[in-house]
Amino acid sequence: MKKLFLAMIALASVIFSAQAQKAETLNLMPVPKKMVPATGRFDIAPDFTVAFTGNPDQRIYPNATRFLRRLDGRSGMFFRQGFLDAGDNSPEAELIINVNRPGKVVLGENESYTLDIASGKIRLDAETDLGAMHGLETLLQLLETDDKGYFFPAMRIEDEPRFPWRGLMIDVARHYQPLDVIKRNLDGMAAVKMNVMHWHLTDDQGFRVETKSHPKLHLQASDGMFYTQKEIKEVIEYADERGIRVVPEFDVPGHATAWLITYPEIGSNDTTYTIQRYAGIFDPTLDPTNERTYEILEEVFSEIAPLFPDAYFHIGGDENEGKHWDANEKIQAFMKSNNLKDNHALQTHFNKRLLTILEKLDKKMMGWDEILQPALPKTAVIQSWRGLESLHNAAKGGYMTLLSNGFYIDVLKPASHHYATEPLPEGHGLTPEQTKNIVGGEATMWSELVTPTTIDSRIWPRTIAIAERLWSPAKYKDARDMYRRLEQVSFRLEELGLTHIRNRQVILRNIANNQDISALEVLANVSEPLKGYTRNKGGTEYESYSPFTLFADACTVDAPDALAFKMLTEDYIQSPNKETKKQLLAYLSKWENNHENFVALTAKAPYLKKLVPHSENLRSLAQLGTEALTIKARPKKAWKKEAEKTLEKGKKPGEDTELIIQQSIEKLVQRTSKLPKRLKGSSL
Amino acid sequence: MKKLFLAMIALASVIFSAQAQKAETLNLMPVPKKMVPATGRFDIAPDFTVAFTGNPDQRIYPNATRFLRRLDGRSGMFFRQGFLDAGDNSPEAELIINVNRPGKVVLGENESYTLDIASGKIRLDAETDLGAMHGLETLLQLLETDDKGYFFPAMRIEDEPRFPWRGLMIDVARHYQPLDVIKRNLDGMAAVKMNVMHWHLTDDQGFRVETKSHPKLHLQASDGMFYTQKEIKEVIEYADERGIRVVPEFDVPGHATAWLITYPEIGSNDTTYTIQRYAGIFDPTLDPTNERTYEILEEVFSEIAPLFPDAYFHIGGDENEGKHWDANEKIQAFMKSNNLKDNHALQTHFNKRLLTILEKLDKKMMGWDEILQPALPKTAVIQSWRGLESLHNAAKGGYMTLLSNGFYIDVLKPASHHYATEPLPEGHGLTPEQTKNIVGGEATMWSELVTPTTIDSRIWPRTIAIAERLWSPAKYKDARDMYRRLEQVSFRLEELGLTHIRNRQVILRNIANNQDISALEVLANVSEPLKGYTRNKGGTEYESYSPFTLFADACTVDAPDALAFKMLTEDYIQSPNKETKKQLLAYLSKWENNHENFVALTAKAPYLKKLVPHSENLRSLAQLGTEALTIKARPKKAWKKEAEKTLEKGKKPGEDTELIIQQSIEKLVQRTSKLPKRLKGSSL
Repeated sequence: MKKLFLAMIALASVIFSAQAQKAETLNLMPVPKKMVPATGRFDIAPDFTVAFTGNPDQRIYPNATRFLRRLDGRSGMFFRQGFLDAGDNSPEAELIINVNRPGKVVLGENESYTLDIASGKIRLDAETDLGAMHGLETLLQLLETDDKGYFFPAMRIEDEPRFPWRGLMIDVARHYQPLDVIKRNLDGMAAVKMNVMHWHLTDDQGFRVETKSHPKLHLQASDGMFYTQKEIKEVIEYADERGIRVVPEFDVPGHATAWLITYPEIGSNDTTYTIQRYAGIFDPTLDPTNERTYEILEEVFSEIAPLFPDAYFHIGGDENEGKHWDANEKIQAFMKSNNLKDNHALQTHFNKRLLTILEKLDKKMMGWDEILQPALPKTAVIQSWRGLESLHNAAKGGYMTLLSNGFYIDVLKPASHHYATEPLPEGHGLTPEQTKNIVGGEATMWSELVTPTTIDSRIWPRTIAIAERLWSPAKYKDARDMYRRLEQVSFRLEELGLTHIRNRQVILRNIANNQDISALEVLANVSEPLKGYTRNKGGTEYESYSPFTLFADACTVDAPDALAFKMLTEDYIQSPNKETKKQLLAYLSKWENNHENFVALTAKAPYLKKLVPHSENLRSLAQLGTEALTIKARPKKAWKKEAEKTLEKGKKPGEDTELIIQQSIEKLVQRTSKLPKRLKGSSL
Repeated sequence: MKKLFLAMIALASVIFSAQAQKAETLNLMPVPKKMVPATGRFDIAPDFTVAFTGNPDQRIYPNATRFLRRLDGRSGMFFRQGFLDAGDNSPEAELIINVNRPGKVVLGENESYTLDIASGKIRLDAETDLGAMHGLETLLQLLETDDKGYFFPAMRIEDEPRFPWRGLMIDVARHYQPLDVIKRNLDGMAAVKMNVMHWHLTDDQGFRVETKSHPKLHLQASDGMFYTQKEIKEVIEYADERGIRVVPEFDVPGHATAWLITYPEIGSNDTTYTIQRYAGIFDPTLDPTNERTYEILEEVFSEIAPLFPDAYFHIGGDENEGKHWDANEKIQAFMKSNNLKDNHALQTHFNKRLLTILEKLDKKMMGWDEILQPALPKTAVIQSWRGLESLHNAAKGGYMTLLSNGFYIDVLKPASHHYATEPLPEGHGLTPEQTKNIVGGEATMWSELVTPTTIDSRIWPRTIAIAERLWSPAKYKDARDMYRRLEQVSFRLEELGLTHIRNRQVILRNIANNQDISALEVLANVSEPLKGYTRNKGGTEYESYSPFTLFADACTVDAPDALAFKMLTEDYIQSPNKETKKQLLAYLSKWENNHENFVALTAKAPYLKKLVPHSENLRSLAQLGTEALTIKARPKKAWKKEAEKTLEKGKKPGEDTELIIQQSIEKLVQRTSKLPKRLKGSSL
C-alpha cells in the first residue's frame, strides 16, 4: 500500500512537472526571460483595438498594423482598425503600447519589454519601440484557442535578450536571392526576435551589388543578377522597420574571383578569370602587395559602405589557402622585404590596410576567424566559424566576437544540434569582462545548394532554435520541448509568406509529374538530404545552374515522420509499453506497404526510377523494424546477420538523401540482444 | 453476330475519335493553329544543347536560358549549358532557334512560329524572337514521359495567334500587389502566350504610382503601398523581356476618390475625401467644368505617360453615375451653356479634353464601354465590359475594340464559362472590316477580395482558358478536353513561382490551427466561393484590410472534387454503368463520413465552428445522393419531399461558399423520376 502511494506521488510529480514545463514555455520561442502566470484570460473579440502612448519611433505604427492583420488573419475576426498611427491613442483601447523613446537599430540598443495580460486589458511597456515590437511578437505567440474562442492567457512577462547580436547570414553570391526572398526572411527573423541580417554579397560565384564607380564588377560577375543601390536601400529600410541591422560582407582577399573577372591585374596569379560555377575553396586571391588592389577596394568601399548605415563592415577573410601567394615570386619577395614570415602575416598586413580604408569610412571591420592574427587591431570583430576555441580565444584577446560554428544551417544537421550549441557552456573559464566580448551569434545560410524555391526550408524552422539559443536564458535546453514549440512557431511563419512548408509539395508534384504524391510523401517524410557537404562531393557534382528541383530538395532536416519515430523509439526502449509499440508498428506498416504505390508512380515520372532502390530500402528497414519489435526472445545469429545487412544497406544514400529512420531501426534491432533467451523449440 | 460486329465498329470509332481528340490537342494550351504529327520522338538527354541563328533581339537569350532551366527542372537532367548567349551558335545543337529579326513589343507584331521536332533534332523558326518565345513555351508543353524517359513527340507545328491583343488586367488599387506578384503573373501570362498586362493603377481605394510632380497623390492615397517610378520601369522591362506590353490605366472621371484626397478642389462636390475602404461604385467624380482638373491631369499624365512605352493609355471612364454632377449647380449651368444635354455628353466633353492631352503625349486613348458616345473620336479604343453588343457596336462604329465581358475572372465563374465566351460567335453579322476592329480581349482581375496570398488562385488556372480563346482557332470549344489540359498546364505554372495551388493548404492550415487538414480539404474540395459579387454584399461586408485568410479564400472555382463529380454525374445520367456508379458512390461515401472528423477540428480551431452547418449539409447531400443512386424504382412522394428540403438546404451558403455538388445531387434526384415504377410491396 505504501508502495502504491509512493508510486502515485511519483507519477503525480511527473505529470506536474510535465505540465509545469508546458505551462512555462507555452508555444513561445524564443522563451522570454521571465514569465509569471496569472489567473484569467483576455478574450479576443472584433472590438479589439490598439493605442499608443509615450514617444515611439514611427516604425511602431506599421508594425502594430501588421500585428493586427496577423491577429485577424489567424482568428478570422474583422477588427475595426485599419492602418494605425499616432492618432490611435484612446486610453480605452484593449491593448496599450507604451514606449519611452524611439529605438535605434544599432548594436546594443535596449530591446526589453514587459507585457501584462489581464482580462479585458493588455499593457505592453518598453523603453524603445524595438522592445515593443518584440513584445508584439510574443503576444502573437501567446494566442491560444479553446472551445470558447481565441484568447491570450493572463500573465506578466519581463523579457530581454541574452545576447545583443542575433544574426542570420544569407549568402546571395552562390545563388542570387531576389528581393522578395530577402524580405520574407527578414519578416521571419523579426518574428523570432533576430536582429542582424548579414548579407554575403560577393564570392567566387558572383558580385551582387551595383557599383556605379566600377560597373563592370556587377555587370561581368552576376549574370545580370545583382541588387541595385536603390534595392539595397529598400532592403535596409525594410529591415530597419523590423528592428534588424544589415551588415554587408565583401569577402577578400580569398573568395574573390568575382573581383578578378573585371580586374585580373589585382590578382595574385597572372591569368584571366571567369565566374565560378562550382562550390568549394578556390585559389584566386587578391594581391596584397599591389597598391592598385587597395585603390580599387577603397574606391568601391567608399561608394558601397555609405549605403549601409550599420557601424560594421564584414570583409570575410576566410579560407585563403594562399596557393597563389606561394607561387608568386613578387609576393614572396615583398614578404621577405617586409619581414612577413608567413601567409597569415601577409593577410594581417592586408587587413591592416583594409582597416585604414574602413576607418576613413567610419566603419568597424569584421571578419571570419582567420583574420585573428597577432597584430590585428582590437577594434576588429571576429566571427567564429571554426569553433568555441577560436570564439573564446578572440574574447580572451579582447576582441568583440560572435559564434557561427554550430550554427551552420547549410550542413543540414537537426535543430537539436544547433539548439545544443552554447557560446558559453558551463565551465567556460572566461572572466566576466571576456564574457562580455561574446556578443552573440549568427546562423549561416551558405547558398551553394539552395534556390529561391528551397532556401526557406533550409533556413526555417531550424533557425528558430538558434534564435532561442541567442535570446533566451541558457537554462532552456530540453530538445523535446523545443521541437514541440518549433512546430507551432514554424507553422505560423507561413503567414509571413515563407515557403518552407508549402514548397515541399511543389517539388514533389514536379518530380511525380502531377500524379498523386502520397507515396512520394511517405518516402520524403523519412528521408533527409545528405549532411555536411556530402551531397555535392568535391563541389563539382552540381553547378550553380544545375536543377535543384530534385527529391533531395523536397526533403528537409528533421524529416517529420523520422523525428516522430525517433522519439517513440527512445520512449519505447526506455519504457516499453503497448501504446508506443502500436504507434511504432503503425509507422512501420505504412513504410512497408508504400513500395508498390511508389513504383507505380515511376511509369509516368522517369526521374523517380532513381529512387526505387531507396524505396526498397525503406521497405526492408520497415520489415526489419517490425520483426525487431515483435520478436519475443533474443533472436538467432542468422537473423542478426541478415539484420546487419539490411541496416548496412539502409545507410546507402538514395538520390542524395538518407533514410534517417535507419538509426532508429538499428536501435530497435540492438534492443533485441537484451531480450530473454529464447525457449527451446521456439522458431526464432 | 452482325449486331456485335456493328457494336465493335461503333466502339472502335469512339475509341479512335477519343484518341484523335487527345492526339490533336495533347497537353497544349493554347492549342496551336496547325499540328501535323510525325513518326518518332526526340529523346531528352543531358547532352541537349541550344543554338541560335539569324538576327534575334537580345531578349531571346534569357528566355532560352529559362527554357533550359525549366526543362532541366522538370526532368532532373544536368544540362551542360548555363547562361545562353549569341556565342551559342553550333549547328550541331539539338535545338536550333532561328529568328529573322528582333521583335517589337507593340500591338500587331508578328508572333508566329513553326516548330519541327524530329528524332535528334528540333528546329524552331520565327520571324521575330517574340514568336520564337511562344514556340519555346509550346515545346515545353510538349514534354512527355513514358517508361523510357522524357521526350518530345515528333511533329510539325505552325502557329500564330487569332487575336493580337490577349490581355490580363490586374487591379492594384483595391488591393496593392507587390512587385513579385506582378512578376510571377507576367511569367504565367508568357507561359500561355498572353501579351498585354493592363495595370489598373488608380481607383477610389488607392493611387499606386509615384508622382514626383504631385507626390501627395501617392503619399496620401496609398497607405504607403505604391510603385516607385523605378519599379514601374522594372516591371515594364520584365514584361518586355517576356513579349508583354504594359498598358496603364488611370481611371477618371469616376472611380477617382484617390485624386480628390489631395485635390478636393477638382471634385464635383464641395467636400473632403478619404481613402475608400469598401467596394462598389462611389460618387466622387472629377469636375469636368473646372480648368484646374485638366491642368492637374495634364501635369500628372505628362510625367507618367512617358514611363510607359506602349502606345495605349487607358483612362477608365466607367461607372460614372454622375450623381455629384447632377447635384452641382455650376456643372449644370456649364452643361446648359455648352449644349451638353446629359451626363454622357458631359463625359464625352471631358474625354475630348483628355484626348487632346494624350495626343500631345503621343498616346492613344483607351477606355471602358462608357466612353463610346456619339462624338467620340475614332482613334479611341473601347474595352467592352458590358457585353458582345457593345463590342460589336464599337466595331461597327469603326473603333478598335476588345472584349472583357465574359472574361471577368473576379466573378468566380467556372473556366468553362470563360471558355465559351466568343468575341465573334457564328452569325455575328459583322463585315470583314468591322471584324478586324475586334483586336482581342482581356481577363480582368478586380482585386476587392484578393490579396497577394490569394490573387494567383483567382487568376489561374481559369485565365488559361481565356488565353486559349484569344490565341487558338475558334473551333476548339470542347470543355472536357479543355479541363483535361487545364490541369496539366496549371500544375506546370508552379515552376514559375505562382502560388495558386500551394497557397490553398496554407490558408487551410491557418484556419485549422495547424491540425491535420484532411477533413477540411474534403469540404474545400466541393465548396466554391460565392459567385458574382454576392460574397461581399453591398460592398461593405469586407473592408480592404479585412482578413482574407478564411475558408472562402482557400476555396476555388472549379472545386476539384465537385468538378470530377459533375462530369461523372453527367456521364452516368447519359449512360448508367457500374464503374461510374462505383466512382460516384466513393465520392458520396467520403463526403458522408467526413462530418465527424471535421467537427473534431473545431475544438482547437474556433473559426471552423462557423462551418459546421456547411459540413452537415455536405453530409445530408451525400446521403441523399447515395439514396438517389441506389434506389431501384421511382421513389415515393414523401422521399421526394424530403429530398427537396435537403436540396434547398444544400444551396445555403456557408462562410461565403456554396456546396457546388448540390447541382449534381439535384440531377441525380431528378433522375429517379424516370425510374420504373416501384413494384407493389417494395419498401421505397
